[in-house]
This record gives sequence, C-alpha cells and structure tokens, in this order.
Amino acid sequence: MRQRLTVEAYTQGILSGDRIILSRAITLIESKLKNDKILAKSVLENILPNTGNSMRVGITGVPGVGKSTFIEALGKHITSLKKKVAVLTIDPSSKKTGGSILADKTRMEELSRDPLAFIRPSASGLSLGGVARSTRETMLLCEAAGYEVIIIETVGVGQSETLVKGMSDFFLLLMLAGAGDEIQGIKKGIMEMADAVAINKADGANKVLAEQAVTEYQNALHLFPKSDSDFITKVVTCSALEGTGIASLWELIMEYQQSTIQNGYFQENRQAQNLEWMHDYIRQTLEEQFYENTIIKKAIATSEKSVKEGNELPVTAAERLLDIFRKSLMK
Amino acid sequence: MRQRLTVEAYTQGILSGDRIILSRAITLIESKLKNDKILAKSVLENILPNTGNSMRVGITGVPGVGKSTFIEALGKHITSLKKKVAVLTIDPSSKKTGGSILADKTRMEELSRDPLAFIRPSASGLSLGGVARSTRETMLLCEAAGYEVIIIETVGVGQSETLVKGMSDFFLLLMLAGAGDEIQGIKKGIMEMADAVAINKADGANKVLAEQAVTEYQNALHLFPKSDSDFITKVVTCSALEGTGIASLWELIMEYQQSTIQNGYFQENRQAQNLEWMHDYIRQTLEEQFYENTIIKKAIATSEKSVKEGNELPVTAAERLLDIFRKSLMK
Repeated sequence: MRQRLTVEAYTQGILSGDRIILSRAITLIESKLKNDKILAKSVLENILPNTGNSMRVGITGVPGVGKSTFIEALGKHITSLKKKVAVLTIDPSSKKTGGSILADKTRMEELSRDPLAFIRPSASGLSLGGVARSTRETMLLCEAAGYEVIIIETVGVGQSETLVKGMSDFFLLLMLAGAGDEIQGIKKGIMEMADAVAINKADGANKVLAEQAVTEYQNALHLFPKSDSDFITKVVTCSALEGTGIASLWELIMEYQQSTIQNGYFQENRQAQNLEWMHDYIRQTLEEQFYENTIIKKAIATSEKSVKEGNELPVTAAERLLDIFRKSLMK
Repeated sequence: MRQRLTVEAYTQGILSGDRIILSRAITLIESKLKNDKILAKSVLENILPNTGNSMRVGITGVPGVGKSTFIEALGKHITSLKKKVAVLTIDPSSKKTGGSILADKTRMEELSRDPLAFIRPSASGLSLGGVARSTRETMLLCEAAGYEVIIIETVGVGQSETLVKGMSDFFLLLMLAGAGDEIQGIKKGIMEMADAVAINKADGANKVLAEQAVTEYQNALHLFPKSDSDFITKVVTCSALEGTGIASLWELIMEYQQSTIQNGYFQENRQAQNLEWMHDYIRQTLEEQFYENTIIKKAIATSEKSVKEGNELPVTAAERLLDIFRKSLMK
C-alpha cells in the first residue's frame, strides 16, 4: 500500500479538486485499519464545512434496463453544462478486484475520460451497513472536491434501494416498456419511492410501447399517495442510446430541486437524512456487537430453527440469546 | 387489581375458550410488572402447541373509510358461518381509559354481543414495540382459545401498518372511491403491501364511482411487482352499510389461504414472520437499552441538533454516544 498522506495533504488535495488525492482519500475511508479510520475521521471533519452543496441523485433499475448507458448519457449531458459530476455505485454483493473496477470504468468509457466526471464503484468486502457508510462519506468527499452533482447508482440487491433513497435528494427509477417480465425484478415498494420513473430504451420499434407505458404509469401513480415533497411523480421516456429525453429529464431534476428548496422540503429532507444516518449507525453498531459476538454466533442457529418451526416462542428464544450476550460481556 | 390465577388456571381457561379468563390473560401479558411477565411467559409456553391454527387478517385504511362498520359486517359474516372471530386493534397512539374501551366496543356493538366474537383494543401506554409484542401474544392466546379468524385492525399511525403486515397472513387495504383527498392519509408503500384493496361505501350514488375506481386500481396494480405469494392483488367493492361484497371478499380471503397453502407460501411466510419476530425483539431490546439509558437520554438532544444542522458528522456523534453508553455500562 502506498504511504499515507497527512491530514492536511488530504484536506488540501480534496478541496483543490485533485482527483488522485480524492481517490486515495476514498480508499482511506474504506479501510478497516484502525489508524486509517482515525485519519479518515479527521479528514472528514476538516472538509465538513465544504459539503452539502451538490444535487444528490439516486438511480435504480433492474439489470438489463440499460443503467450504465443511461448514466453515461446523463453524466455527459451534465458535464456538457460545465458541471462536475461524480458517479458512485452501491453494490453490496460486489467482490470487486482491480479487474472489475476496470470493467466498471469500461462500462462508462466516455464518461470516465471526461475531466469533469469522477466514477467510483463501491468498496468490496463490506457489509451493507459498511457500504452505506462508505458511500455517504465518499459523497461528502466528492462534494468537498467540487462535484456539483452526485449520482448514486444501485444494483437493487437487498436493501440497497432504501439505502440510496435515504441518501439522495431525488430518486429515479429506470424501467422498460412492455412491463411483464421485466418488472418482476423490481421489489415491492420501490415504485412508490420514486420521484420520477423513466422508461428507457424508448427508441425504434419500442417507441410506441414506451409512450403507452408512460400513460399507464402516470394513471397508476396518480392513484398513489403524494410524496412529502409535494412533487408529483413524473413518468418520462428516454433513449440513452439515441440521447433523447436525457436533457428534459435533467431539467425535471432541476425543477424538482428548485421547487423543494422553495417549499423547504429539500432542507428538511437533508436534515432528516442526517439524523437517520446517526441513528442508523447507532443501531447497526449495537446489532453488530450482538450478532458478531462469538458465543451468539454459535447459539443462534438452534434458536432460529426452533422459532421457525414454531417449537419455541420467538420472545423466549430472544430473551435467552440476550441473556447469553449479557453474560458474555461481563466476562 | 384482581388476584392472579395460577398458570394452570389460565391455561385451562384459555384452552376451554373461557372469555373472561382469556381477557384476564391478555391483561396479564400487557402488564409491565415483573411477576406478571414471568407468569405470562409460562402461560404462553403452555398454550404454544395450540396456536397457529387461525387465518390472520390485517386490515388498514385511513379514518373515515368506515373501518369499524366494515369489520363489524365482516365479523358478523364470519360468525354466521359458525366460525369464531377475534378482533384486535393496534393503536400505538392510544391512551385508552375504561371510557374509550367502552367506546371501542360501542363502535362494533352488534359484533361485541355475538358469542362467537371477541373484541379487544390494544393496550394503552405501550411503545410501538410493546404494542407489537402484546398484539402478537394476544393473537396466540386467541388462537389457543379456539378463534379461527383473527382480524388485526390498524389505525395507520406510525409504523403500525408494517407491524400488522408482519403478523398477518392476508393484508387488506380499505379505500374510498373518488381518490383525491381521501388517499392523502395513506402512506407510501402501503398500496404495494396489500393482498387486496376493497373500495368501501360502494352504495347509493357512490356505486358507479366505486366501480370506476376498481378498474383504475386494477390497471394500476397490474403494473406493480407481483407479490411473493404469487397471488395477484385483487380490487373489489363493498358496502359495509348495505352488507354487499362482504361475503365475496371473505371468499377471496379463503381462496388466498387455499392457494398459498398449496404453493407453500403460507407456511413460508409464517416461518419468516416467526424469525422476524425474534430478531425484531432482539433489536428492540438492544435499542431500548441504549435509548432508555439515563446518560444517553441527557446527551442525545445536543448531538441530534448538531447533526441535523450539519455541524457534526453523524458518525462522529454516533460514536461519541456509543462511547458514553459503553462507559455507563461499566460503572
């Protein structure tokens, strides 16, 4: 591993927009080493006053929906407006090596060569909680480095959509026309989280189908509860391949930003997210201490089996485990 | 307070279907006294082999949708089929006194006089976690007392829908035609949780509107992800007032039960709910120990303020609080 820099060197490098140092700082916050953690904390505290000034856009969609091509097209549109964009990926299942980071960059080849863009896949080998934490902190580092738009992409595994929704200002769901099979992969509740739904691949013979889908989804969504943001979920079409619909989608995002800043929701939501972040971290730590406890790890399988099969009251099993945990702490 | 019975007296009374003893056993499990808790645990362990044999139906809907009248009509239909039904209410906001328990019974006057029906509102003064626990345990007591259908009603405050969804086999959402204002009260994500949507008050001039709503919701819901149960969410109309649509809705619930027993989902879901119950209880206990800690209670407001305003990193604040907590345990 390369030598660590000083806190000042990281801070100065990030604030001056140095991409190499930004990358190294992200590696630092992803590190599990104790010394790295202490260093990372100081860096984050230093740059904190320079964070928060971006538009945070979460994007989800099932595999095959064309996410990479879409994000590349959106990213290029944003840099064409002379804005700096960072693309972060949340993939809790990733066991990335150097090789597949390369693959990730190849995926968005043009965008990755754009000096106004910064692409970073999620760290490997972290728990979902760990991924959440490192992505949130990476977002702050990117903001301090002057990135005005942060795109957080999720592959939609496990709870990752909820995580991304919880750290973004605007949440976009990518879908395909012709519903049916394609939407099977989407989990319940995701549709209702979206601030906008974009029907991708609205090109060629698909175009008519996509327009039909817009009407259908729009009719469907107006039946659903309104968001706290007071913004009515829009359904639009786009073709990342042909580049159509991308500019107007970006305008929609800007419109959302403006209207939620005006009605106060933007700030409210950010504050609620900050609080949620703190409480999430507390809960995760408490749970980790319990579930990662060696004695609990040994005892839990038997309890799970008897509870699942209805041979033991869930509460009885839980109390026994909590008791074992308490005693193990006293040793 | 009345004298406590012995474990055997509670057990025998419940198993023989004695309503008075059932009521007293529920009061026992709701009690916060240590001796009551020990007694309650023994009773629950005794009756455990006699539980699980009911159809658990969760029902939600915003105030004004006619929930009480609907549940009374459904309950009476069920007892007319010679089946025993228990109605439990989850209301985390309730500060019920004797007076409003009376009000609750008056609400379903006819049903409450039916010897095959048992109505019990949720306990007062409990946390959401406490309400969840006591409702789950009450459900088990009612099953042991021979109730074949358990209706769990939620008033839709806080996280109560998720709780009820997590303890029922079938989840019904009551709605009104004419969408608009009425659905504002429904929270995001609830629509997608429902196994069926019933448009209530489909009577008089409202009838045509209700039929239109059925078509609209049916079109909308078919665009949404399929449930793990493989059961396609149905939309139906009913009028609790005129008693129409109640019998066919009950048939729908029976159809659901049959098809999910056949495809194995019914048992799978029950097992997953049991496991979830155990883990929920563990998580809640760990969190309560933290958040109810006297020193944490004093320290947390300042941390919340600085985090909310972006003056401190959420993780920094969380770690400080966790550190305070750890030290307080060692004292």
